Amino acid sequence: MSERLVIIGGVAAGTKAAATARRRNAGARIVLLQEEADVSYSACGLPYHLADLDRIPRSKLIARPPEAFRVDGIDMRTRHRVEEIDLDRGSLRVCDLQADHVYTEPFDRLLLATGARPKRLNVPASPDAPPIAYLRSIVDADRIVDRLPDIRRVVILGGGYIGLEAAEAFSRLGREVAIVEMMPRLLPAFALPLGQAVEERVRENGVELFMGSAVSGLDRKHVVLDNGERISADLVLVATGVTPSTELAAAAGITLGHTGAITVNAEMQTNLPHVYAAGDCAESYHRVANRAVWLPLGDVANRHGKVAGTNMAGGRAVFPGVLGTAIFKVFGLAVARTGLGEAEAVTAGYRPISQVVEVPSRARYMEKSRNLLIHLTADRASGKVLGCQVTGDDAADKTIDTVAAALWGNLAVEDLADLDLAYAPPFLPVLAPVQVAGEVLKKQVGAMQG
Amino acid sequence: MSERLVIIGGVAAGTKAAATARRRNAGARIVLLQEEADVSYSACGLPYHLADLDRIPRSKLIARPPEAFRVDGIDMRTRHRVEEIDLDRGSLRVCDLQADHVYTEPFDRLLLATGARPKRLNVPASPDAPPIAYLRSIVDADRIVDRLPDIRRVVILGGGYIGLEAAEAFSRLGREVAIVEMMPRLLPAFALPLGQAVEERVRENGVELFMGSAVSGLDRKHVVLDNGERISADLVLVATGVTPSTELAAAAGITLGHTGAITVNAEMQTNLPHVYAAGDCAESYHRVANRAVWLPLGDVANRHGKVAGTNMAGGRAVFPGVLGTAIFKVFGLAVARTGLGEAEAVTAGYRPISQVVEVPSRARYMEKSRNLLIHLTADRASGKVLGCQVTGDDAADKTIDTVAAALWGNLAVEDLADLDLAYAPPFLPVLAPVQVAGEVLKKQVGAMQG
Repeated sequence: MSERLVIIGGVAAGTKAAATARRRNAGARIVLLQEEADVSYSACGLPYHLADLDRIPRSKLIARPPEAFRVDGIDMRTRHRVEEIDLDRGSLRVCDLQADHVYTEPFDRLLLATGARPKRLNVPASPDAPPIAYLRSIVDADRIVDRLPDIRRVVILGGGYIGLEAAEAFSRLGREVAIVEMMPRLLPAFALPLGQAVEERVRENGVELFMGSAVSGLDRKHVVLDNGERISADLVLVATGVTPSTELAAAAGITLGHTGAITVNAEMQTNLPHVYAAGDCAESYHRVANRAVWLPLGDVANRHGKVAGTNMAGGRAVFPGVLGTAIFKVFGLAVARTGLGEAEAVTAGYRPISQVVEVPSRARYMEKSRNLLIHLTADRASGKVLGCQVTGDDAADKTIDTVAAALWGNLAVEDLADLDLAYAPPFLPVLAPVQVAGEVLKKQVGAMQG
Repeated sequence: MSERLVIIGGVAAGTKAAATARRRNAGARIVLLQEEADVSYSACGLPYHLADLDRIPRSKLIARPPEAFRVDGIDMRTRHRVEEIDLDRGSLRVCDLQADHVYTEPFDRLLLATGARPKRLNVPASPDAPPIAYLRSIVDADRIVDRLPDIRRVVILGGGYIGLEAAEAFSRLGREVAIVEMMPRLLPAFALPLGQAVEERVRENGVELFMGSAVSGLDRKHVVLDNGERISADLVLVATGVTPSTELAAAAGITLGHTGAITVNAEMQTNLPHVYAAGDCAESYHRVANRAVWLPLGDVANRHGKVAGTNMAGGRAVFPGVLGTAIFKVFGLAVARTGLGEAEAVTAGYRPISQVVEVPSRARYMEKSRNLLIHLTADRASGKVLGCQVTGDDAADKTIDTVAAALWGNLAVEDLADLDLAYAPPFLPVLAPVQVAGEVLKKQVGAMQG
């Protein structure tokens, strides 16, 4: 009998694993169980969908509809919720939500791609409080779209990347937007000048910022802060972070890591060799921090899924780890990072040194040139690059990707200064931003050693 | 007595060396001899200056005027031509072109930053032939600007990057443009589909292409080709390549390399330890080809100059070599490369394997996403990345810089596939272009090994 591969979850990691396993092993029986009606959609695209429904309709976010998987011989079951994993029997208890019917599904190999879910707001709310929304799943977005005609003013809880992307989306839709951030400044994981650049950009675009305060309750058309302030709201968008969906795994006794997500090895196996985990519910090995981290990001989920799918289907693939690279855009300003920030580097056991430089993105006389703020961190002793953070209206992505490739190769700041990059006036200044940053930090590493 | 450092040439390498030496050694006497009236200008910016004189006037191309160097205590002598190097006496014969006066200038250390000059057109021309122009120095550009009112139609000889940039500049000025290219196709060093993409873009923009033919002469308002064709022209721009300016060095017995440019070691010293060479007159070590190459490019000249200036002033710096990274833009299409092409890889002793992929630059549903053509080359046996070529309207520069950083770290195609890059829909698709290219080539490397 052919092997039964069962996958729980069908957004990024799950669908990628299913498609990869199918290509690798034509004989296996592949079942994918997805609670939502939609599969294989770009959750990262939701803010862009919201901001421009005409140009990016719902359908464009969906990479492949369920039928496309079925055509490939994948038993794709949407609106099916897994209620329990029975490891002794090698089966799942599944609820078909449409038919309201519970049944048992056997597996030989199992993939947990259960994702992550938003932290829920847990404060007292009066019956006439503004409605609460999230922006994590495509259904979350549908709900917001339905409410849009009634929304004039949105209060967003959380100034992380989802909160900021949503703030821009609502602004573009002509809504008034306020952000409530518990920390005293935006993006505390970023170097101060970079966080300030983001704060300035957000304020310039008319978004009100309430920082250093938490929400204590919701009452009639208002959000109430713990300092007593009341902010008027037609909708409250909660974007205070996400939590890995690990209940099924935990209940079955599968090991979770220090991050709360599922522990996996490089083959994406959990502590049980025939049970895999991938995507936002699983940890990743961080190549610079040299430890497991939890980074719920779409591209990481995709790569996880590919490795898990290959291995489940009898192939052999290894997930080589992450660098913690991430980027988002808010009102034209790109905010990007890779590797470790200074505090993270200390935690990881390095003795870091950092420097901020401000440099043009292209030859100064070219119209598209904009200044970048680059915060580069290296190990004092070895000069090894540890991480980089960038903000800018132009080429922040290029700068970070260049540093990410350098980090992958374990390059030192001296190497960054020496890199041979693609110079021409429309693309770079004669000294590239990463070269300038590398040069500045190299002198300090040298001075420390001398 | 303080050391006398003398630099011949003041565009990129020479001025960078002078400024670097000044910072490093406050006591040295630094003399810079430059034949032109201008110093420290962006030769790479000339086509952009030409295309838009209002936005990029001549003054914007000049990074630092001669006075700025003098304020720093550099004896900057413009309109001074060096006529001979006397190595025995450690002196130069210099002609002050303004005063029409010849004198002797002694040196302890000498830097040759004599640059490169365009190959001259050497065909019979009637007295009423169209005027000939070049686009290498700022004076060349001045001459073209002076003639602009009389020019309706330009014939450009040479379809390399200068010819193509100039074609775009003249087109933007509303002039009719034709390009004559001796080779049967544009950019023969690039993979065929990439060269074709450029050809198509150039034709779409109304530029006539005459390929596979050479110029045999010029007569009344026409360029005459060797196949008898006659092309009407008000101006003939010769952009058939450049030649290193090495006459002074050669006459003094300084060693030239197989490329015709001056041989240097990693300290930028010629065969004589107190004589340095940098910029377009000097060779560079190619890190992938593992041999000396000649790459007359502005950013390389700048880095050469920095190393030479540091060493001349008593410091110690090493030029770590180049990857052959280069980029230009023509009618919106970026054309970029790093490392070796397939034929170059064979010459360098590798057994290469290559693949072309066509991939979107950003999430498909984002408005700015455009397709990239990527030609990736790796070593069959080891999978080591050897080079990459890219064309595209968006993110070709980012793609090449990412691969260039990977090449610097000796990464393999498998690493490219695994890289952790900055994904978000406005910046990349969930699988980055370099990841797709790496993945495709990795399978072939694997298949070859298997």
